[in-house]
Amino acid sequence: MAQFIEQPHHSAGVETSFHVRYAETDAMGIVHHANYIVWFEEARSAFMRVQGTSYTAFEADGVALAVSEVKARYLLPARYDRLITVRCWLDNLQSRKLRFAYAVLDAESDELLATGYTEHICITPDGKVTRIPKKWQDRLSKAIASAS
Amino acid sequence: MAQFIEQPHHSAGVETSFHVRYAETDAMGIVHHANYIVWFEEARSAFMRVQGTSYTAFEADGVALAVSEVKARYLLPARYDRLITVRCWLDNLQSRKLRFAYAVLDAESDELLATGYTEHICITPDGKVTRIPKKWQDRLSKAIASAS
Amino acid sequence: MAQFIEQPHHSAGVETSFHVRYAETDAMGIVHHANYIVWFEEARSAFMRVQGTSYTAFEADGVALAVSEVKARYLLPARYDRLITVRCWLDNLQSRKLRFAYAVLDAESDELLATGYTEHICITPDGKVTRIPKKWQDRLSKAIASAS
Amino acid sequence: MAQFIEQPHHSAGVETSFHVRYAETDAMGIVHHANYIVWFEEARSAFMRVQGTSYTAFEADGVALAVSEVKARYLLPARYDRLITVRCWLDNLQSRKLRFAYAVLDAESDELLATGYTEHICITPDGKVTRIPKKWQDRLSKAIASAS
Repeated sequence: MAQFIEQPHHSAGVETSFHVRYAETDAMGIVHHANYIVWFEEARSAFMRVQGTSYTAFEADGVALAVSEVKARYLLPARYDRLITVRCWLDNLQSRKLRFAYAVLDAESDELLATGYTEHICITPDGKVTRIPKKWQDRLSKAIASAS
Repeated sequence: MAQFIEQPHHSAGVETSFHVRYAETDAMGIVHHANYIVWFEEARSAFMRVQGTSYTAFEADGVALAVSEVKARYLLPARYDRLITVRCWLDNLQSRKLRFAYAVLDAESDELLATGYTEHICITPDGKVTRIPKKWQDRLSKAIASAS
Repeated sequence: MAQFIEQPHHSAGVETSFHVRYAETDAMGIVHHANYIVWFEEARSAFMRVQGTSYTAFEADGVALAVSEVKARYLLPARYDRLITVRCWLDNLQSRKLRFAYAVLDAESDELLATGYTEHICITPDGKVTRIPKKWQDRLSKAIASAS
Repeated sequence: MAQFIEQPHHSAGVETSFHVRYAETDAMGIVHHANYIVWFEEARSAFMRVQGTSYTAFEADGVALAVSEVKARYLLPARYDRLITVRCWLDNLQSRKLRFAYAVLDAESDELLATGYTEHICITPDGKVTRIPKKWQDRLSKAIASAS
């Protein structure tokens, strides 16, 4: 019986694991590079869930986190059906923007497959940059503090 | 400057063409089957555009077309970089639902790669089934009439 | 702490669970219908893993299962971050083809969101239809037998 | 019959255009950021086709271009059905690696929506880094030269 566990990683960050889907592979026989960006996002979602909340609650507060930048470095390929772990941590928090960092690992061999980050700006429903609501600043600050 | 042309096919239906994207292939070296469902949708979008309108205008009228059923039959594989043509026509129109049918072809060899259909129900923003607005019934009826 | 469990369902079928990814939603605010086809496949992969093997092993035996038909019916929408369960069972097995059936549920409310099936034909690396290898026929027969 | 035209942009780079697909949007009502990475790739494919060849031919020569790094900056959102133009040019060519740069524009308003680059290393079928074959070095050098 397989098990997928989302858990805090050390004091910092959160790890989430899943199997590579066949649809995520490409004709090179490996995971298509764009899917790592989706994996980053899924790890970010897990990060929010583990903080005891969800990005859904964030949007319910009338603000959204728009992705302003993404970067990924690919070190080793991933293949269908492998169990993958993505580690996600918040590595920068400002009044209107924040940055998550990621490490993608093969869950069995523990090899590092990719690293990356995403930057986000807080926006209102009509797309204007705004401050991250205090409630969220507090929650996210704690996540950073617990990591140091 | 690049150009993208979509045109009516015979009196009925609309054809749209595009190259297979590498991201659409899978480890079998062929287009992953789920992408044909996305191609159907893109052909449907082209159908709406050729009717002189767009699905965006449909949603602007406060209704949406939710997909209630999809079926696809796969006859021959498609590979990266091939030019694909998807033919789309409206083959059933009722007061609250409609059905589009599709044929996916290799644009160069003219081989039939896949066929399928999608059924849609007209819903309000809160998800209730509703009648397709008269304006749209009229437009869509013409598309069916011109096909017979 | 969230947990994802792949397990046999009753005597028949296998269940796999995961959260809806943000990338899987569309501008209607719900999961895009093409992603259910990807979910079916992921449930199929879990089915193979629970049988003590993997589709990777199947391909390693020099044959592949090409998707020849897919059908899905959509009953209720799924939204970002919801925990989804997909139940998958083998409901038809012939010498050269087989059929998997699926039920997609909201894991918390237990509501049925979608149903569907996929048909597959066994092919050689050069795309010719061939018999499903005896080893696999035996394994898959057991999966059907245990379900009745 | 539908037609799809890709053409060189000035002396440098290539432009390719397509409509935003509904499947590419997310619950924020805009194109999901991971899809820009797929668009970059499609622009890269168009670049190769306009050079009178194709990435398929590249792979047929027994080598592949593995993506080693990707970066994207998002400036303005893109929405369903908008006509998008992606400009792609080769901005760095070395013996074993190369870099493509991209600009994503709204084809009608000419607004710049996103920029980015991808880095690629030349690998053998078993994943070892190797020199880009001379034939391809020559072709690609010309693409760079014509741009200056």
